Amino acid sequence: MSVNESSSAIIVTAAILVIGDEILSGRTKDKNIGYIAEYLTNIGVDLREVRVVPDVSEEIVAAVNALRGRYTYVFTTGGIGPTHDDITADAVAAAFGVAIDHDPRAVAMLSERFSPEELNEARLRMARIPAGAELVANAISKAPGFNIGNVYVMAGVPAIMQAMLDVIGSTLQTGAKMLSDTVRAGLREGDIGGPLAEVARAHPEVSIGSYPFWSETGPDTNIVVRSRDAEKLLAAMAAVKTMVAGEKQRSL
Amino acid sequence: MSVNESSSAIIVTAAILVIGDEILSGRTKDKNIGYIAEYLTNIGVDLREVRVVPDVSEEIVAAVNALRGRYTYVFTTGGIGPTHDDITADAVAAAFGVAIDHDPRAVAMLSERFSPEELNEARLRMARIPAGAELVANAISKAPGFNIGNVYVMAGVPAIMQAMLDVIGSTLQTGAKMLSDTVRAGLREGDIGGPLAEVARAHPEVSIGSYPFWSETGPDTNIVVRSRDAEKLLAAMAAVKTMVAGEKQRSL
Repeated sequence: MSVNESSSAIIVTAAILVIGDEILSGRTKDKNIGYIAEYLTNIGVDLREVRVVPDVSEEIVAAVNALRGRYTYVFTTGGIGPTHDDITADAVAAAFGVAIDHDPRAVAMLSERFSPEELNEARLRMARIPAGAELVANAISKAPGFNIGNVYVMAGVPAIMQAMLDVIGSTLQTGAKMLSDTVRAGLREGDIGGPLAEVARAHPEVSIGSYPFWSETGPDTNIVVRSRDAEKLLAAMAAVKTMVAGEKQRSL
Repeated sequence: MSVNESSSAIIVTAAILVIGDEILSGRTKDKNIGYIAEYLTNIGVDLREVRVVPDVSEEIVAAVNALRGRYTYVFTTGGIGPTHDDITADAVAAAFGVAIDHDPRAVAMLSERFSPEELNEARLRMARIPAGAELVANAISKAPGFNIGNVYVMAGVPAIMQAMLDVIGSTLQTGAKMLSDTVRAGLREGDIGGPLAEVARAHPEVSIGSYPFWSETGPDTNIVVRSRDAEKLLAAMAAVKTMVAGEKQRSL
């Protein structure tokens, strides 16, 4: 966690690590990155980086260790099911250098759903939890996620990941929320690039992004202003609106 | 490029680098990763890693340099528009340690679309190309992407990125194509995890993935078998099918 010196607001940062060959092959289209990104923004956690890696232990270990050292939180998705290609829990244990074994608490959770005959070696794989980790309940299919250090390990199936994130979300330390507002310019991006850069220079503590899109009436631009400080956001928004009105006038 | 020693098949690898605050904030949901992943798989290029980084020069430089040293190709999306927050071209030039300036070829392309009055400083920003780069034509909005070393820089707007990828695709060295086939098991993942792991152990040169899903009739599993070798793929598929038939019999 770092402190924004200009406003003393606490900044909480995060990374997402998506684990899965099926995403890299294109067979499965990821739906978790955008969901988690929006969720974190809404609770005041800054998502700073995303990585997608294959089901290869060394790749997962390297990414977990690179990200957990850099950000307040790391959220992983994928690779915690009952089959041989689910290696996330073992890789995370290796990244932390801790043992991994069947966790009695996780076995108890699985027993709520599966009969003793159903709780075979494959399903018990879902109870393999690194030593020292806390479990994350899974209301949908019972097999838990877990949290070790600043790393949160979640399922890849979107509905289950979302249920886990709801459980995790309330336990996270959150920072000053990034506020944002949007001006739809009604002008082409290239027509306002110059004056918009001037507005950005005059408001250095505010982040201003420009996103072109095609509307029914032709090319248009959304200008997104972001800041943790409500007053600075308002001031920059006013400057953007004044600039846009001036450029519209000029283009008549 | 590395050579698969078991079959002497050439393996061509790639990474995607998505650049953009709007993806990390969740405001925009990325549509490029899945598209490029599928495209590369289809032409025989193995996507091995994806990263998403913010519009911050040092982050882009670090990611470009980490990825271009590791993979045959790197494809970036985003940050090549006409506004102040479009810093990808400058960051890629910095990553390669080369100069960047208005490229006469790129200015000529922009002149096909924009009148001299329209071709203002903001739009000319889209003609900033690192020294030594080759341009990638953009049939949609004219502003080109570019290729320097093994890095391909593309637009973030999906339709434009796709048009650029079509131009780039035919120029890429491609490797032995990864073949894949799928068995819909009609069984729960946890019921077949054990025997599926045995099949995987007996077919070590084939990659076998297991993906649970909910069908109208209840929980089901897709088993995806992947290999560059058609015979090995067929042999593993046969073993998976035999295993699934046996497990179905056993569950009656």
